[in-house]
Amino acid sequence: MRNICLKLSYSGKNYHGWQIQRNALTVQEVFQKALKKVLHESDVEIKGCSRTDAGVHANEYFVSFKTDSLISLERLPFALNYFLPKDISIKKALEVPIDFHARYSCVFKEYIYKIWNHRVRNPFLDGYVFHYWYKLDVDYLNECASYFAGKHDFTSFCTLDKRDKKFLVRNVEYFKVFIENDFVIFKVKADGFLYNMVRIMIGTLLKFNKNKENPQKIRDIILAKDRSLAGPTAVPQGLYLNRVFYKGINC
Amino acid sequence: MRNICLKLSYSGKNYHGWQIQRNALTVQEVFQKALKKVLHESDVEIKGCSRTDAGVHANEYFVSFKTDSLISLERLPFALNYFLPKDISIKKALEVPIDFHARYSCVFKEYIYKIWNHRVRNPFLDGYVFHYWYKLDVDYLNECASYFAGKHDFTSFCTLDKRDKKFLVRNVEYFKVFIENDFVIFKVKADGFLYNMVRIMIGTLLKFNKNKENPQKIRDIILAKDRSLAGPTAVPQGLYLNRVFYKGINC
Repeated sequence: MRNICLKLSYSGKNYHGWQIQRNALTVQEVFQKALKKVLHESDVEIKGCSRTDAGVHANEYFVSFKTDSLISLERLPFALNYFLPKDISIKKALEVPIDFHARYSCVFKEYIYKIWNHRVRNPFLDGYVFHYWYKLDVDYLNECASYFAGKHDFTSFCTLDKRDKKFLVRNVEYFKVFIENDFVIFKVKADGFLYNMVRIMIGTLLKFNKNKENPQKIRDIILAKDRSLAGPTAVPQGLYLNRVFYKGINC
Repeated sequence: MRNICLKLSYSGKNYHGWQIQRNALTVQEVFQKALKKVLHESDVEIKGCSRTDAGVHANEYFVSFKTDSLISLERLPFALNYFLPKDISIKKALEVPIDFHARYSCVFKEYIYKIWNHRVRNPFLDGYVFHYWYKLDVDYLNECASYFAGKHDFTSFCTLDKRDKKFLVRNVEYFKVFIENDFVIFKVKADGFLYNMVRIMIGTLLKFNKNKENPQKIRDIILAKDRSLAGPTAVPQGLYLNRVFYKGINC
């Protein structure tokens, strides 16, 4: 039995996120079908590194699964890509220790959020950015975002049904905002993210930018542990899972 | 009566080119419908700067039309974008001399052709590049492409039904090839282009690259005025009308 880890990338535009759902097409469902064809195995249990929401993209995503197949690691990505649609791409396959789990072995994740900050839309980016034309003050946004860094209870920045059951402390390593051509890019790395956490952080920063709130108020909102004090959840189209970090494994 | 020129940009992925056709959706048809709604005029004659083939994109495209409407040049792009789908974007409107014609007043055009030159496909670029993974030698390609520069009869590099009726001499100002990340970009500027000319030039360069032909053979093919000696027509997805130049008008 081998434990295989695949590095992939996908456009979330045409999918209802990663995880299999009834009545909606997901990346996992499409991937799983291709994998079964390639491995000639009827039942393969796939571990994905993260749920992603409908419309959210992945520049880098990892899955792991155990198999008896002897297919070479060199050939596997090409065989899978042959069966996959063009908006999903397998980049690399590697063999990992038997206890490796794409989700639980992950120690850090990095997301980016792309805003097309221009008065006129870009016809090539529909579904791939949030088109927002109100002027963004990057220095100010960085000051606000700096309050996210560190170990905090992020109750105010997540959507949850059953809060009591969850451990809501996360360690944010950095949250940076920068300009790239007509894009404003938000980049955040943490040891984990709560449901909708990045999108609520972005929605809050945009609201702050518009109202010119005192940046320190971000700290107050974190401390209050009250979702209603934060901003709206930003649209999914701008969000990309950008990097996934595993301890001791160089993917 | 005012003569208005619009600068736009569109993704050709979902269209059968610019020009109106029966039984196929084109950019002109969609644009024309939006324009009629905005101007409240039932019949507006639109001049486009170029035909583009099915699947070909435009980073920059110009149309001109005459109208009695008094709508402000500032408002016009926003009004049109409201009615247009997201893969078409009006960037600017300007008033031009009454004899300006988006097609006939054009003195130069520049096209780019984008190749994703990587073993593995990019899931975000389906329909927007030619995915070609055979290694490209950019220095060699530039040497080959240099033979296209100048005033030549490009019969060998066009698709035509009725050759005798056409004037097939075009003046190519430059043809450059360069690398940008994992892309190889071809950029060509000329006073005009024959039908499929850029795509046949690209197809020929790719064939030369693979067979390591003597670059001077490009000159021989031009002189032979024989389409069968050139390479295949490259796929449309990588082609973008990139810039359009008008004399005395700064768009």
